[in-house]
Amino acid sequence: MPLGEFDLIERYFRRAPSRRDVLLGVGDDAALLEVKPGRALVAATDTLVEGRHFLHRAPPSSIGHQALAVNLSDLAAMGAEPAWALLSLSLPQADERWLEGFAEGFFALADASGVALVGGDTVRGPLVVTVEVLGFVEPARALKRSGARPGDALYVSGSLGDSAAGLATLLRGGASAASDDPLVRRHLFAQPRLALGQALAGVATAGMDVSDGLLGDLHKLCAASGVAATLELDALPLSEALLTRHSPEECENFALHGGDDYELLFTLPSDSAFPGESGASGLPRLTRIGRITAGGSVRCTRGGTEVAVSGAGYDHFR
Amino acid sequence: MPLGEFDLIERYFRRAPSRRDVLLGVGDDAALLEVKPGRALVAATDTLVEGRHFLHRAPPSSIGHQALAVNLSDLAAMGAEPAWALLSLSLPQADERWLEGFAEGFFALADASGVALVGGDTVRGPLVVTVEVLGFVEPARALKRSGARPGDALYVSGSLGDSAAGLATLLRGGASAASDDPLVRRHLFAQPRLALGQALAGVATAGMDVSDGLLGDLHKLCAASGVAATLELDALPLSEALLTRHSPEECENFALHGGDDYELLFTLPSDSAFPGESGASGLPRLTRIGRITAGGSVRCTRGGTEVAVSGAGYDHFR
Repeated sequence: MPLGEFDLIERYFRRAPSRRDVLLGVGDDAALLEVKPGRALVAATDTLVEGRHFLHRAPPSSIGHQALAVNLSDLAAMGAEPAWALLSLSLPQADERWLEGFAEGFFALADASGVALVGGDTVRGPLVVTVEVLGFVEPARALKRSGARPGDALYVSGSLGDSAAGLATLLRGGASAASDDPLVRRHLFAQPRLALGQALAGVATAGMDVSDGLLGDLHKLCAASGVAATLELDALPLSEALLTRHSPEECENFALHGGDDYELLFTLPSDSAFPGESGASGLPRLTRIGRITAGGSVRCTRGGTEVAVSGAGYDHFR
Repeated sequence: MPLGEFDLIERYFRRAPSRRDVLLGVGDDAALLEVKPGRALVAATDTLVEGRHFLHRAPPSSIGHQALAVNLSDLAAMGAEPAWALLSLSLPQADERWLEGFAEGFFALADASGVALVGGDTVRGPLVVTVEVLGFVEPARALKRSGARPGDALYVSGSLGDSAAGLATLLRGGASAASDDPLVRRHLFAQPRLALGQALAGVATAGMDVSDGLLGDLHKLCAASGVAATLELDALPLSEALLTRHSPEECENFALHGGDDYELLFTLPSDSAFPGESGASGLPRLTRIGRITAGGSVRCTRGGTEVAVSGAGYDHFR
């Protein structure tokens, strides 16, 4: 007997609320949620489509993880603390094994991030996953794209290009999705920079997450702030795993144009001493990769000399 | 030159915020929203898939309308006042004509309902539309499914079955989507019962919207409340348009099992005098269609005698 929509929700997605601010969770027409005074609500949504955002043979646990991770990365990019998620699943069939894996990946990250799943929808259709996340931030401390000023230092967290290199490895058949390859793991199970985003709230002048490639995303940050930037290509943070396996040209290409890094790109007043910069506070490595200037474009330099770099970020409709 | 993702968002979905509580809308990593103290946040999401929730040849304005309407109906069913929406669009291509129609239908309903679009995502993929809506209600007044008690009177708003009959007409080729057929219009442009929902908040003991067919949805309300119900089939509110075009058996079938009515099903203490009952307050017609009893099932009566009615509501995976 096929699994019905309501059994499916009951079995895989209805859990006792993990947060006391969930007044009513999965199972009614809508969720009822308690917002603390003095905090603004932060809301984001992202959709993943099979064959475009994840491979047909991707492990379901990585799809569940990724669907939540890309959304949490948006909250991190606002300096927000996550609270609740809604999940819309369009599925070709109610495949119990797939659902089990998906739910496992989704809830592992939800639990680690303090997020309660409070509602959603399941329909039959092509495999498309939409997640909406809700969180909080003190409005005056929110990390917007628009606050960068000439003279600010430009930073990025962690390392760039690993996820794109991991995807390339998978596409070449150079590793299975189940392998322990660190680049493949980075692609399948990216970690949103929630702690860093909250630490940067009220400190960084602007911030966003790197999801469509560093260069294209830096263009967006500059456009939103009405500024230009100089990006020092020698400073791009690259992981040992990436450097060991790829030529310097490939590494730079992955770092500048590869998607799905989910690092934070942010600006600090040049004279600031952000406590996380020392790397001693449990936050990821932070690397200064350039500076904000007046004007309206992005210049790249190598060894102090300007070089031409083509290409922008990923655009779904080009 | 193809329309890019960012042009697409700029051209069709970015507007000056229509509400002062939108601190930051479309264009950053997430929206920043101001919640009034003393009110709970109400959140719902629904997904529409081409060929399942709307016909391949449905006018894009009706898809835009419907994607928001089904979600607003969930807020109405909680007694909530809507505020904000997020929109995730998976599209096979950036068809400007389609987008124009879709945005027109979406924003016409958004404007009429006081809803601001504050964020979203556009990706390339099969045609799948997910909307999330956010609104408010005083928590103690929220209309839950779980509050019905034996002795309560059972009510439904408006008329039932029109939307399903309109869909049947379209599927038979009996009318084009552009026709003025009131049943077809009802299917394509259902109106969420927002004013009624807010009037019932704090008054009705339980409530939900009728989206998957009256009988199936009544089963869900009874299950959530731990009660049974007697449904008087003679009392089902049917429109003149429906009665004129269909046999009594067809009408009853559409009313009991047809989806997409988006009326409110609710319960009132039997001695209550709900001001809307007179129909004088600008609210839709309300019809008493039965009563809540002890037990755990739904009995149907015709002329005071119990009759057997088979079938439950629509389930996407059965």
